[in-house]
Amino acid sequence: MQAVPTAAHPLTQELALPPAQQVVATRRDLHRHAEPGWCEYRTAAKVVASLRALGWEVRHGRAVTDSASRLGVPALADLRRHEERAARSGADPEILADMRDGHTGVMGVLRGAPGPVVALRFDMDANTCAEDSAADHPPVQGGYASLNRGIHHNCGHDGHTAIGLALARLLAEQRTAIRGEIRLIFQPAEEGLRGAAAMVAAGVVDGVDFFYGCHIGVQALRLGEVIAGYRNILASLKLDAEFQGVSAHAAISPHIGRNALLAACVATQNLHALPRHGDGETRVNVGLLSGGDARNAVAAHARLAAEVRADSSAVLETLRDRAMEVLEGAARMHGVSVTTSVAGACGAASSDEALAAQVAKAAAMVPGVTHIRTTADFKGSDDAAAMMAAVQRTGGQAVYIGLGSPLRHVHHHPGFDFDEAVLPLGLALFEAILRQGGHVGPPPSQDPDGMQTRS
Amino acid sequence: MQAVPTAAHPLTQELALPPAQQVVATRRDLHRHAEPGWCEYRTAAKVVASLRALGWEVRHGRAVTDSASRLGVPALADLRRHEERAARSGADPEILADMRDGHTGVMGVLRGAPGPVVALRFDMDANTCAEDSAADHPPVQGGYASLNRGIHHNCGHDGHTAIGLALARLLAEQRTAIRGEIRLIFQPAEEGLRGAAAMVAAGVVDGVDFFYGCHIGVQALRLGEVIAGYRNILASLKLDAEFQGVSAHAAISPHIGRNALLAACVATQNLHALPRHGDGETRVNVGLLSGGDARNAVAAHARLAAEVRADSSAVLETLRDRAMEVLEGAARMHGVSVTTSVAGACGAASSDEALAAQVAKAAAMVPGVTHIRTTADFKGSDDAAAMMAAVQRTGGQAVYIGLGSPLRHVHHHPGFDFDEAVLPLGLALFEAILRQGGHVGPPPSQDPDGMQTRS
Amino acid sequence: MQAVPTAAHPLTQELALPPAQQVVATRRDLHRHAEPGWCEYRTAAKVVASLRALGWEVRHGRAVTDSASRLGVPALADLRRHEERAARSGADPEILADMRDGHTGVMGVLRGAPGPVVALRFDMDANTCAEDSAADHPPVQGGYASLNRGIHHNCGHDGHTAIGLALARLLAEQRTAIRGEIRLIFQPAEEGLRGAAAMVAAGVVDGVDFFYGCHIGVQALRLGEVIAGYRNILASLKLDAEFQGVSAHAAISPHIGRNALLAACVATQNLHALPRHGDGETRVNVGLLSGGDARNAVAAHARLAAEVRADSSAVLETLRDRAMEVLEGAARMHGVSVTTSVAGACGAASSDEALAAQVAKAAAMVPGVTHIRTTADFKGSDDAAAMMAAVQRTGGQAVYIGLGSPLRHVHHHPGFDFDEAVLPLGLALFEAILRQGGHVGPPPSQDPDGMQTRS
Amino acid sequence: MQAVPTAAHPLTQELALPPAQQVVATRRDLHRHAEPGWCEYRTAAKVVASLRALGWEVRHGRAVTDSASRLGVPALADLRRHEERAARSGADPEILADMRDGHTGVMGVLRGAPGPVVALRFDMDANTCAEDSAADHPPVQGGYASLNRGIHHNCGHDGHTAIGLALARLLAEQRTAIRGEIRLIFQPAEEGLRGAAAMVAAGVVDGVDFFYGCHIGVQALRLGEVIAGYRNILASLKLDAEFQGVSAHAAISPHIGRNALLAACVATQNLHALPRHGDGETRVNVGLLSGGDARNAVAAHARLAAEVRADSSAVLETLRDRAMEVLEGAARMHGVSVTTSVAGACGAASSDEALAAQVAKAAAMVPGVTHIRTTADFKGSDDAAAMMAAVQRTGGQAVYIGLGSPLRHVHHHPGFDFDEAVLPLGLALFEAILRQGGHVGPPPSQDPDGMQTRS
Repeated sequence: MQAVPTAAHPLTQELALPPAQQVVATRRDLHRHAEPGWCEYRTAAKVVASLRALGWEVRHGRAVTDSASRLGVPALADLRRHEERAARSGADPEILADMRDGHTGVMGVLRGAPGPVVALRFDMDANTCAEDSAADHPPVQGGYASLNRGIHHNCGHDGHTAIGLALARLLAEQRTAIRGEIRLIFQPAEEGLRGAAAMVAAGVVDGVDFFYGCHIGVQALRLGEVIAGYRNILASLKLDAEFQGVSAHAAISPHIGRNALLAACVATQNLHALPRHGDGETRVNVGLLSGGDARNAVAAHARLAAEVRADSSAVLETLRDRAMEVLEGAARMHGVSVTTSVAGACGAASSDEALAAQVAKAAAMVPGVTHIRTTADFKGSDDAAAMMAAVQRTGGQAVYIGLGSPLRHVHHHPGFDFDEAVLPLGLALFEAILRQGGHVGPPPSQDPDGMQTRS
Repeated sequence: MQAVPTAAHPLTQELALPPAQQVVATRRDLHRHAEPGWCEYRTAAKVVASLRALGWEVRHGRAVTDSASRLGVPALADLRRHEERAARSGADPEILADMRDGHTGVMGVLRGAPGPVVALRFDMDANTCAEDSAADHPPVQGGYASLNRGIHHNCGHDGHTAIGLALARLLAEQRTAIRGEIRLIFQPAEEGLRGAAAMVAAGVVDGVDFFYGCHIGVQALRLGEVIAGYRNILASLKLDAEFQGVSAHAAISPHIGRNALLAACVATQNLHALPRHGDGETRVNVGLLSGGDARNAVAAHARLAAEVRADSSAVLETLRDRAMEVLEGAARMHGVSVTTSVAGACGAASSDEALAAQVAKAAAMVPGVTHIRTTADFKGSDDAAAMMAAVQRTGGQAVYIGLGSPLRHVHHHPGFDFDEAVLPLGLALFEAILRQGGHVGPPPSQDPDGMQTRS
Repeated sequence: MQAVPTAAHPLTQELALPPAQQVVATRRDLHRHAEPGWCEYRTAAKVVASLRALGWEVRHGRAVTDSASRLGVPALADLRRHEERAARSGADPEILADMRDGHTGVMGVLRGAPGPVVALRFDMDANTCAEDSAADHPPVQGGYASLNRGIHHNCGHDGHTAIGLALARLLAEQRTAIRGEIRLIFQPAEEGLRGAAAMVAAGVVDGVDFFYGCHIGVQALRLGEVIAGYRNILASLKLDAEFQGVSAHAAISPHIGRNALLAACVATQNLHALPRHGDGETRVNVGLLSGGDARNAVAAHARLAAEVRADSSAVLETLRDRAMEVLEGAARMHGVSVTTSVAGACGAASSDEALAAQVAKAAAMVPGVTHIRTTADFKGSDDAAAMMAAVQRTGGQAVYIGLGSPLRHVHHHPGFDFDEAVLPLGLALFEAILRQGGHVGPPPSQDPDGMQTRS
Repeated sequence: MQAVPTAAHPLTQELALPPAQQVVATRRDLHRHAEPGWCEYRTAAKVVASLRALGWEVRHGRAVTDSASRLGVPALADLRRHEERAARSGADPEILADMRDGHTGVMGVLRGAPGPVVALRFDMDANTCAEDSAADHPPVQGGYASLNRGIHHNCGHDGHTAIGLALARLLAEQRTAIRGEIRLIFQPAEEGLRGAAAMVAAGVVDGVDFFYGCHIGVQALRLGEVIAGYRNILASLKLDAEFQGVSAHAAISPHIGRNALLAACVATQNLHALPRHGDGETRVNVGLLSGGDARNAVAAHARLAAEVRADSSAVLETLRDRAMEVLEGAARMHGVSVTTSVAGACGAASSDEALAAQVAKAAAMVPGVTHIRTTADFKGSDDAAAMMAAVQRTGGQAVYIGLGSPLRHVHHHPGFDFDEAVLPLGLALFEAILRQGGHVGPPPSQDPDGMQTRS
């Protein structure tokens, strides 16, 4: 067994703890330093420093984050503000430099004996949402509530990344037993489906034979429950629309105005009225709208944030075209202009049944796993789907795994929290999967299926 | 005094009655044979026959109804149906032939000693609206309710035309006393502002020095009340819009449909939401809408009838442009096509104050006139405005006069009715006006103003 | 074998033809005399007369049509008009008398040796839709286009009923071989989901062990194709809404008006914008809307025909509640009243897999059946579902079978037509099913499953 | 002549300048320290200090600002922040204490020989709108751009108050010549029609015989132009509406959500579609709307700021009732709650013609006044109307005067600016009015009308 490095570095000190404690401590550290999409500077720097300390080959910044393929990148001033914050909170300046201006992807690679390429993906970003400050909210009680006001890990990505780092350590400890290549992908900006495309474009899943992603608490609310591979991760498109009109005094010269707010309201109503689709489920939402400057002026501008989803990419395309018509028609109707931009996007995906069966088999060997479900509808979207699709397109197999946990509140709620006992369980599951697949440890004699490199 | 012809002709028999009885009998005959716009075949034939019998020079049909300038002409089949009906009800085939296919304007001319040109306009059409069948509705009581089901003189045009024909008879009886030229204009299709433009285009007000129009019961609800000249007759545009989409089964393939009904609903709402105007009053209404074929199919078509009004033609233009944007934007929004057509139109007009003063002076001499108001806002539209504007544009003067009457119900109501006592009063007023203006009878020594031909 | 009666009666003359000719001739006769829901007087009289002629026990009128449970019954005047028409077209006055005022259900019963109760349901109504008059439309070519203008069998119910009558004859010919009880249910007013509930309420499926329905050309467009049992027949609710406001002159006093049309437009938009549902597919459609009296009046009334559908009754209930809120909110918003009525309704249903397997087995024995699919989503609604649910609720089994046929145009299209070769095929399928189930003919030794009475 | 006090106090130092310089210097100081409604702590403290220094009797704070009658008061935290800012910028703590928590009205009183009571009203508040930062924007060029970011005197109230303070000084210098009582009313929170009602309720116009208000640059864009008394200041009501619904994941459980944003959009559209009124002009505007928390969540809340206006209070009432129906209907429609609050309100008012004639006469004597218009439509709203109406109700006379000035940009525009030459001109006009009315200086022998106390 390889010696674990001493955790002199403030961002890597949890590596000194036993694995089951490490995963929880890391999760709490990440939760306390929650960072929004494309601004996960401290988180990514911590991942880089940890992987390096563990002896992984590390790629980060633009090397694994294709600049042009990123979606929904915040304004430069916001990025810079977060960079400064991260620098102040102990992130290594040299690592930060490589990630400058929103290139916060990280990948660790470990290679062993010849064998298939395995990738495991963990997402790192938090939401822009205030965290519950009630005394009985566990992060408040435990003293690890978010220090970054208005940024909250209320989707569990802190747990995902913590599992990833704990797994990195377990694998590093068995590096002589590795077969094939193992890639740990730490992805920025999953929220809003903004980050995966940039990492795919940078090649992180090129040549991958087996791909694994996971989420805590989706359709699985019992500790010990595992969904071996979700199906029907919905395709989704996130659209921002800005309407620009002409202001005018609402009493003296309303006829001179061009009402951008009215156009946005008409668009909102008609987006929600987009037709259902005979070939599959659809979703539409305008979740944010704001417009106008003053009560007594015709509103010269308005903006809205919309999303459409569908259970297939083909249906999504129809919805997208229809949504664009609605936006343009609403603008035309009130004589204003509209500009739209894609703030996030991802196709649909489903887990491969064969690989899910392997996951189920591995899960059965993990102590504490009490309920194994082969599959379930994901019902939401996750841009892991972009990686899954890329892998599946070139002949690889992919699964997206559910890790059951009771939730205090639903995902994205200010009071969201999961049961931390899911973390060592998730870690054990991934180790079992890799072991079962023959990627690490003595080759399992009983099941040779898992170790084939695809031709 | 010229002998009144014996009324052998069934359409002219009221000419044998004393004037005060004639005007009521004629009104009742017209009421009984109510005809909608461009289909006033019997009414116009009666006017032609009467004027001829009285010795007026008569022009009718295409000679006074410019074919291309007509608006909102019914479908040919409807016109033909009404022609046949008129033929059956005693209209002269030769007269009908000249009016064929919706050319129902008539003008009578009488010329005397040199002098100014005077025009008086009376409208002839009824509304497409069922008449009240209650026993206490006076036309029912009196046995002159409309024989034409769904067509009702509920705006008083029967009264206007009756006054015109009675006046024709009074003037014919004094034809040697005529000074200048007197024109009696009997206009079709005032409802919907569809007829005046065609008569103007045919030249009926060319060279007119003094123009008079009138309406019963508008802003004047007392018998004996006269409004000497309305101001602010609203400009108006009548727009028909047809939306054409694509039908589809609403459950199996709603995404294939293109919902014309939804587009029409969005258009209706947003037409009503057209901005007020800082430079004047506006009105908007979508009064009719229908669409769809079946509950369970995406509606492939819809049509609506809209109108916009304003107290100036400039403001109306802004409204028109905005309304077109709304219609086109609504269609664009739902991927359907829209075609619009102008079903009626008229500019704004106001009475000349000087001529209104003359009317007030004449009114003061009419027994039974008890309340004389110089002016009042008309608040509605009337395409007499098109004739007024044409006259005013070339230096003439025009007034639109209010004849007070209590109403049983408001204009266009199924139970609308006015007090027939207004009819001889209106007749006497017009005679007084012409006498006061020096157009007929001995020149009034006390006031020479009225008789000047404009230079 | 029992003698077939001579077809002296004009409505039963096809009984003299060989079965494969009979089914086509009957379909053409029904097509020619297409009748809308609750007005199938001639059709039902023909069914009664035929069944009687064949020796079936017949119940019809109020005995099998619960008056209060009928939905979407036309106005009395319309019903009477159709009764008179039916009387003129040869229907027996005594039979008509029992069906008076919209009670057009019929059931034939045949009983044999002790055994299970089997019900087969055929719907009889046509749509209120003009039939294509093109020369190449087969009913035009064949001289059996609908004589009833605006009423068209463009959903294939003429074919269903023809199969039912041909089956009645085949069974009558083997009446000594019947085991158990066979019920042939001829249902009115399937279109709009208006009729099944009334027959269920009258008890026609009480005690039924096996229930069979069928439809031509749904999701199966190849001749020879059979869908053994549809799943996911959508629950649906048909709502009529009438908005009543206050009329007013649109220019003079728009503020006095209460705009019912605007309320209906707002409702239409917001009905289409009803939220999608996380637990299943939904559909919404406003297929018909009309309102207003005149372009220049605030519209005092408007009406719309809407429908909502869902793949479960629970989801449908949510939609119904939401739809009611939208209608009431729209009325409240514009100060008008709204009254809603249920014009049709049906829950969701799916075929029983076990019975569908039996159907598939029977289908495999029918010459000409080339493609057998176990199941398919129905994607639309059919109130056979009400009968299926009633049967399933009490422990019986039910299937709804698809009979494949190419279509000239989709269902409900003016040019809809199917391939008449499906008719003898459907007839043969039902005979095979009954034979396979042991309900008629020598008991099949090889498969005892079909003949168990449920305990 | 009374000695002007030395301007040791930083807020009163302009008093040492000659009047024509004082008024400009004061305006610039106020512009530089622009303060929003109910937060005019420094401005009001400056007014108090100046009036006191000039020997006026001063009432301020709650004494002239009825707490309960204030509308649209900012949140306490905002008020406190502005109080602290004002304290830092030199306002006297003792004066501030009286105005604490948004009671910023001030009135100066000067009494002389027996005579009528005259009130002159000047408004003090700026808008919450960023000021143009372009180098050629005169306040930037002149170094007196607003120091308070996002607060800008872009309606000219800085000029109004500057005129008032310069007038205070002129009158103080002639205090022995005063006849009757002169009140200088410095009103807070005119923007949004929030302040006048509170000062009226506190009695500041009780017993007033002649009331004067003024505005720079409204319908009068030439320097030297005076509108002697506006008519048709529009009645207006400012409504805030908050919609509260239920959040839900937009993909997983949209049916659980209650969409407050959709309700707000429907309300906005239908508020704009409120019917025009036959009895007068109306205006409607929703100028601000915002709602939602996240793109992928059903929006649980939304708020909008609306206003309705009319040229009579009766018409405004109709609009208000209709607007409430729309808001409640929209909420009902989407199953959310709505709470509304009045953020500002004022009735309609017109200047008294007789008093306007006096103003015109006085204006004719002022050097530099080149165009005098008796009246003009105001076209907007101003809560001076509340004071005018109160005065007129008890038999006094009131005018609202227009002071002509070219504008760089329209009122409320970030680049708004007027020609400062209007300030000494306005000062001279008010002095002439008071002199002409006999309220100060030797009684004008030529016109005794102006000095009558009303009985």
